[in-house]
Amino acid sequence: MVLKTAKVNIQLDKESAVSLSQQIYESLRNQILSGDLKPGDRLPAARNLSKSLDISRPTLATSLEQLELEGYLEIRQGSGAYVCSTLKQKPNRDKEGQGPAKLPISEYGEFLEALPEQHETGTTQQAEPEICFYPWRPALDQFPLEEWARILGRQARNSDLSVLDYVFQAQGDQWLREEICGMVARFRGVKCTPEQVIITMGLNQGLNIAASLHLRNGSSVVVEDPGYSFAWSIFRGHGANVVPISVDAQGLRVDWLADTRNAKLVYVMPAHQFPTGGVMPLTRRLELLEWARRKNAIILEDDYDSEYQDHGKPIPALMSLDTNGCVVYAGSLNQLMFPSLGLGFLLVPPHMVGLYTRARQYAGEQLSVHLQRAIAEFIQEGHLDRHIKRLRGLYSERRNVLVQALVENLGGKCGIVNTGAGVFVLARFKSKFNDEEIMERAKKQGVGLVSSRSFYLVRAPRNEFILGTANLDEEQILEGVARLAKIIG
Amino acid sequence: MVLKTAKVNIQLDKESAVSLSQQIYESLRNQILSGDLKPGDRLPAARNLSKSLDISRPTLATSLEQLELEGYLEIRQGSGAYVCSTLKQKPNRDKEGQGPAKLPISEYGEFLEALPEQHETGTTQQAEPEICFYPWRPALDQFPLEEWARILGRQARNSDLSVLDYVFQAQGDQWLREEICGMVARFRGVKCTPEQVIITMGLNQGLNIAASLHLRNGSSVVVEDPGYSFAWSIFRGHGANVVPISVDAQGLRVDWLADTRNAKLVYVMPAHQFPTGGVMPLTRRLELLEWARRKNAIILEDDYDSEYQDHGKPIPALMSLDTNGCVVYAGSLNQLMFPSLGLGFLLVPPHMVGLYTRARQYAGEQLSVHLQRAIAEFIQEGHLDRHIKRLRGLYSERRNVLVQALVENLGGKCGIVNTGAGVFVLARFKSKFNDEEIMERAKKQGVGLVSSRSFYLVRAPRNEFILGTANLDEEQILEGVARLAKIIG
Repeated sequence: MVLKTAKVNIQLDKESAVSLSQQIYESLRNQILSGDLKPGDRLPAARNLSKSLDISRPTLATSLEQLELEGYLEIRQGSGAYVCSTLKQKPNRDKEGQGPAKLPISEYGEFLEALPEQHETGTTQQAEPEICFYPWRPALDQFPLEEWARILGRQARNSDLSVLDYVFQAQGDQWLREEICGMVARFRGVKCTPEQVIITMGLNQGLNIAASLHLRNGSSVVVEDPGYSFAWSIFRGHGANVVPISVDAQGLRVDWLADTRNAKLVYVMPAHQFPTGGVMPLTRRLELLEWARRKNAIILEDDYDSEYQDHGKPIPALMSLDTNGCVVYAGSLNQLMFPSLGLGFLLVPPHMVGLYTRARQYAGEQLSVHLQRAIAEFIQEGHLDRHIKRLRGLYSERRNVLVQALVENLGGKCGIVNTGAGVFVLARFKSKFNDEEIMERAKKQGVGLVSSRSFYLVRAPRNEFILGTANLDEEQILEGVARLAKIIG
Repeated sequence: MVLKTAKVNIQLDKESAVSLSQQIYESLRNQILSGDLKPGDRLPAARNLSKSLDISRPTLATSLEQLELEGYLEIRQGSGAYVCSTLKQKPNRDKEGQGPAKLPISEYGEFLEALPEQHETGTTQQAEPEICFYPWRPALDQFPLEEWARILGRQARNSDLSVLDYVFQAQGDQWLREEICGMVARFRGVKCTPEQVIITMGLNQGLNIAASLHLRNGSSVVVEDPGYSFAWSIFRGHGANVVPISVDAQGLRVDWLADTRNAKLVYVMPAHQFPTGGVMPLTRRLELLEWARRKNAIILEDDYDSEYQDHGKPIPALMSLDTNGCVVYAGSLNQLMFPSLGLGFLLVPPHMVGLYTRARQYAGEQLSVHLQRAIAEFIQEGHLDRHIKRLRGLYSERRNVLVQALVENLGGKCGIVNTGAGVFVLARFKSKFNDEEIMERAKKQGVGLVSSRSFYLVRAPRNEFILGTANLDEEQILEGVARLAKIIG
């Protein structure tokens, strides 16, 4: 019996960074997978093949051995190399990467697919306008970067190898949890123990975990309208109906909660409502807690960005008043340090710590211990407190500059909704143009604006904008407002 | 009308680190919240109060102003300070922190609450035995810590302030995704683009995201038995039925898939099955891909710990053979660098990238950009490749030492199930004692063992142990086995 030797087609690029043996391996592998070389085919003798390709025998042998190891070839002693005869299936290459005709997608997947584009964050960033009144941006240039880098590098150099090992603290690093306890006691009046702190991947993971634990298909969740619309999508992703209740200068209209029949979760920002800036007074806080007690409901307190009150100390967090264990507190260091830090935390009543810890564990591994410990040291050494206190004064000045400039430049064309605190001012413009047109006209003048429109659930007012000033100096604010005055129309 | 002045009870600790005004504030606040001071009550005149407490008038004024700001007191000009008359509710303090009688808990919350204790990771770590054969621990002392710390510190010192800003790349940092592409091409034979890479919080977040997108209540998911049991709980948390299929030395028994009726997701470790160490050969891989194509199913490939093959290059990942876009690849750098790093990644077929990106975005913020970029630089500079290549040889040596020591010391009392690759050896002991007893006896000798029992779904064999050697030197391995020989019985 004469064995037929298959024809192989190998093109080598001797200039390539890819090794010759790798090139041969890939070429033969592709011919086998594509069916050009068939099960049982015999390759040309190694001597002939190495000669025709002008390569050494060991180079060829390396390729063939790898192919044998992976099951593409059988090398028979004294006979040569054969395409493996048990290779029966060949993948369908017709619709490469197109995916199965009907993918198995969950309800959650379907929900995500149906979300409108506005929720998308692109993978590439467009060039920004020169002056951006963006409410999410703190004063980046004020952050003590040198201190931070020094501390982070030092923590990473920690020669205690157990720090590198598996983390069996699903709640996060003990030291960091202790420092966060101290921080919320100093700034937010919350007394809790490190056992109640759960480190999360930013604020959003905290909201997602709470939603996953308290919402089921058909649940109702009360939210502030306007409010943080990203959270609404998180809640809906867990099958919940989002029930909006209006806010006024004192935050959520707690008196309207009576109309919500089955809500078992209410999501509020009592310290500094976004985007209206409302601060909930004590009376209303106590009413809210009493409502939750009567209804056996959970209050999810979003305390983001609450450290920057102007006068006196900030009002303590709602959680500090809770004696029934019904408040879950979600916080973040991203606005206090810098947004790309990616660190949030939950404060959880003792009776729910076990439950939340498990949910955190199943949601993914903990953040890098080096990072967690660097943040702990940064807080312990007082850098965070000093930074917050310095920014308070600066943010207050910058807000005042903006308000005065708006009044002077725009006069009756600008109504200021709230100037109370924090890093932004909510303002409404009287204009013949609409939101989109104003943003477009501002952009042409090099000014970036954020409309409040997407943060309203029921009906947004015309031409309301959230003007952040934290990262703009006086000159930029004045120039930005002067440019706005020209285009409001 | 004679106004009654309420009696206040303030105890000051002048040695305390807490300021006097803070102490007064807290004391009055607590008396108001507890009802000891009632709405409408008048406080003693400031002059009298400061005198009786032996503090300055400004100190007292600071406290009272804060209480007024927060809505506890009303200060009437010329008349004094009154407990706010609109404070009607008083929180129920009877069952402090006990929580509502009937908490609103989701199905997911109920599932987590019902999980057996074995899944819990405690918040405190017990003292470890002297010699731990733990399969999850890489050679910690081999990691180039100085290089890593230098790079991390340098990345944090990056003076480009835009790095500190909000991250609008939900998939993760572009540079890191490029480096991961290169890495999986070099080590795992996977050709993908950075657009297909999604950075996750460790491997578990990747598994959780895939589960959330493909599983719904009543779905079936095929898993390897034995296998990574933590993943089973993740799948069940999404309402799925976990369908076990046995493994042999070649991994999952793909021929048994025909018996699974409705499974639309199969979770496999083809490169190095945990804990059996089986490697799936090409024929079976192609069968698995063909099954998925026919059934429109998704294959979730867990490629954890696959870089440490002994002979030749590791077999390329299953994803490298997928031409139908049905393989989702979950990887991690935690075993390659160090476990507390907390970095994982998904490789997703192009047609599902949008869906997975949204799911990642809703699951929480991205990891610290400083950390992501430091890892990118660590890979780009070749540190990771050199580290992996060095460990391959070391791990192989250590495994060989263990196998030889087991044979010499335990002889017929030890059957070695698999020695193929990776960082552990699976061995069965013949003993009159059971798993628990052997672990307890070993612990008393200062030896830590991990039974494979909890990784079996249907029926675990008696006295099978997963012996990790990566972090043990020759002397420790020999000493550990010698001690085992004494107690196996």
